[in-house]
Amino acid sequence: MYNKVTPEIVDELIEIVGNKNVIYNNFDAMEAYSHDEVAEKSYAHMPDVVVKPSSAEEISKIMKLANKYKIPVTPRGAGSGLSGGAVPVEGGIVLSVEKMNKILEIDKDNLMAVVEPGVVTNEINNVIKDDGLFYAGYPMSVETCYVGGNVAENAGGGRAVKYGVTGRYIYGLEVVTPTGEILHLGGKRMKDVTGYDLIHLMVGSEGTLGIFTKIYIKLMPLPQSKVDLLVLFKDIDTAIKIVPKIMTFGRIIPTSIEFMDDLSFKTSCKYLNEKIPFEEAGAMLLIELDGNSKAELEEQYEVIGNLCMENGAIEVYIADNATTSERIWKIRRNIAEAWKQYSPDQSLEDVVVPISEIPKFMEKVRKISEKYDVPIPCYGHAGDGNIHATPVKNPKFTMEEWLDILHHKLLPELYKEVINLGGTISGEHGIGHKRREFMSMALEPAQIEVMRAIKRALDPNYILNPGKVI
Amino acid sequence: MYNKVTPEIVDELIEIVGNKNVIYNNFDAMEAYSHDEVAEKSYAHMPDVVVKPSSAEEISKIMKLANKYKIPVTPRGAGSGLSGGAVPVEGGIVLSVEKMNKILEIDKDNLMAVVEPGVVTNEINNVIKDDGLFYAGYPMSVETCYVGGNVAENAGGGRAVKYGVTGRYIYGLEVVTPTGEILHLGGKRMKDVTGYDLIHLMVGSEGTLGIFTKIYIKLMPLPQSKVDLLVLFKDIDTAIKIVPKIMTFGRIIPTSIEFMDDLSFKTSCKYLNEKIPFEEAGAMLLIELDGNSKAELEEQYEVIGNLCMENGAIEVYIADNATTSERIWKIRRNIAEAWKQYSPDQSLEDVVVPISEIPKFMEKVRKISEKYDVPIPCYGHAGDGNIHATPVKNPKFTMEEWLDILHHKLLPELYKEVINLGGTISGEHGIGHKRREFMSMALEPAQIEVMRAIKRALDPNYILNPGKVI
Repeated sequence: MYNKVTPEIVDELIEIVGNKNVIYNNFDAMEAYSHDEVAEKSYAHMPDVVVKPSSAEEISKIMKLANKYKIPVTPRGAGSGLSGGAVPVEGGIVLSVEKMNKILEIDKDNLMAVVEPGVVTNEINNVIKDDGLFYAGYPMSVETCYVGGNVAENAGGGRAVKYGVTGRYIYGLEVVTPTGEILHLGGKRMKDVTGYDLIHLMVGSEGTLGIFTKIYIKLMPLPQSKVDLLVLFKDIDTAIKIVPKIMTFGRIIPTSIEFMDDLSFKTSCKYLNEKIPFEEAGAMLLIELDGNSKAELEEQYEVIGNLCMENGAIEVYIADNATTSERIWKIRRNIAEAWKQYSPDQSLEDVVVPISEIPKFMEKVRKISEKYDVPIPCYGHAGDGNIHATPVKNPKFTMEEWLDILHHKLLPELYKEVINLGGTISGEHGIGHKRREFMSMALEPAQIEVMRAIKRALDPNYILNPGKVI
Repeated sequence: MYNKVTPEIVDELIEIVGNKNVIYNNFDAMEAYSHDEVAEKSYAHMPDVVVKPSSAEEISKIMKLANKYKIPVTPRGAGSGLSGGAVPVEGGIVLSVEKMNKILEIDKDNLMAVVEPGVVTNEINNVIKDDGLFYAGYPMSVETCYVGGNVAENAGGGRAVKYGVTGRYIYGLEVVTPTGEILHLGGKRMKDVTGYDLIHLMVGSEGTLGIFTKIYIKLMPLPQSKVDLLVLFKDIDTAIKIVPKIMTFGRIIPTSIEFMDDLSFKTSCKYLNEKIPFEEAGAMLLIELDGNSKAELEEQYEVIGNLCMENGAIEVYIADNATTSERIWKIRRNIAEAWKQYSPDQSLEDVVVPISEIPKFMEKVRKISEKYDVPIPCYGHAGDGNIHATPVKNPKFTMEEWLDILHHKLLPELYKEVINLGGTISGEHGIGHKRREFMSMALEPAQIEVMRAIKRALDPNYILNPGKVI
């Protein structure tokens, strides 16, 4: 179906991006572009060639070339994805945006940042905080991931309870389409209903509908105060049952409500060589509040603290300074990385259920874990109902047994329960390569057909990131 | 291209929705379905038949029938639209959702309302307010418009500065596609990246990509306090220059920053028989703040009040009770209606520019107004840069002269200036029928081609709301 990349095609690519921005015939240098952060090695695939363009015009030329020769193109951000979205499963060209890493503009009058896709997400807040500005995007890989990847995956993260996911902040995109057209969508205007909303069709399209070359991000005034509550519970059930109550009974929408079971936080603490007095705790909630009124925050954490203590919490710790807050959040952010170190044979899942269904979901997880004798530690964004349940290989299974159980029994069963509860199979990591075979469990045939029709309409040769999503 | 509705087809429609839900051969009853709230009579067009289905299944059957016979279908909400979106410009079937007017569920645990498309927007807040819940959508026609129409147009309104537009609150849609498939998109989950974001492709598609039959709306805890500031200025310039400063210098994101020039508020006051001490005022800002902390709101309105007084405001009135607030907002909400009464020959525009460009935009408006000797009163959502500039026929022109100036000179020039300032031709009213000929001024050919490809993919017979958007 696709053609191979020939030395002649590589010459044409060199002509477009320059010799130093092409990696070819160099296994070691290309290996890094063969995988993302998905643990399972079988998802990796080597590219034929890696190119590192510097502009929309160069990317447009690459796409036109790829169409001419029918070569697949896989766009790549930082490679911190968790669904294999940046893996060139059909070989061909990996198009890395790593050179496009400039913050082009901070427009204080319009509260807008204009950035290239290869900017590390954290950098935006580092640059704007002294101006009292704030970007709400906060994926757990914030120190390494690229904004372009955040947009491609519609990344969620730790502040979505209050601030929503990445898409909410994207007001404009320069996009190169699969056929090499350069589109300029939206901009610095706060509202726009001129034609269909192509911006939010592109957001979350996992690099299958376009490559972003310029991103307009809405900023906000930086909240003046922040406080984190670390709440310890003896078990998962007690912790998880508090989550919907904070919002419904407490009438408070915190910035974050993160959940960690004991396996998760202990693994992360071990990895970070961090000590927190948690010996008797079986689960933790990390609740962040922000706002401009210190008094209001105090009122809110009183309400939440009391709610937790009245409902079985062991202890509520308050972190109201940046150092302690960062220490706690570091534990939360490093769970995935820690798990990968200690249990490389695992499947980091990303299911989401309505908030009220989290307790029922946790019950299902426990049953599935027992049924297959597979530990399934859980952590994640409880305030969104987005739980990173992570089945981990029991050493008693051979690798073959494990993969058979995981792919043919455990995951289908887990997904089925999630869907029965009104949830879906991915909340923020995406479908990519990893969950593609399961997408038809979550979506009706007619929905998938509409998505296919859109993909066909934009990418008639099916060359942009094939093997992903649909 | 299309076929006419025959008595035989009407019989088939009666079979689907029942005799009492079909209007045919009754000019008087059908006339109401021939127009929306666009003032210009030339945009109206009579349907061949009106049907009032009660379910997704009935709508699916109607769409299949329409495809079979190649009859255009124009979906219709309350008919309160301002771009001719609900006008059956090609005749055929008008599909009114007026019978589908039930609030199906208020799910307090998940902070979610599930409603049919024919629910009047205001009704949602009326039903939920006693539970301390709140839906942020607030189009100025909130007392008459339907939620279905709000979703179709991605309605903005008076609270978008802080709360964003309709789309932000839409988490699920049941949609009948142009070919009659029933899709169930999203639901009560807070995050979902399983496949492309079809929900936000549907939102704002102006009834050209699907008909909504069930809408999942995110609710929030009702803010405990609210205060409105009515700020009088001697002229437009002084008022408008404050707008970006409130957010950048004041670091405050109010719920609303509405702008009215003297012509606008005086016309509305006259229409409502309302008196406000404004004789010397040339412009007004209506600024709303909400939150849970009364103390914080007081602090904020002090900051804003001082900022306004230091920058040339005549007077700042504080409305901190519901009655006074509603009195002020009623003036704002009724401007469009008042204008229609006093100056039926006018064109209610909906342009949007980056907030920092509003002063420059107002200058351009004044120049265009002088150049063509056409009054252009302005009001609207200044906090979003969304200004309803409204050219009104100067009595010295014949109707023919007026329409020539408006369509061939004034509007193209106004739009050109807006686009040069980084804005676009519609912020919340939509393209519809009214602005279709101008869309190519705002969008690149490649963008329009992508939109066309999507339309073709979903509606191969081009029967759903033809003549709109693209």
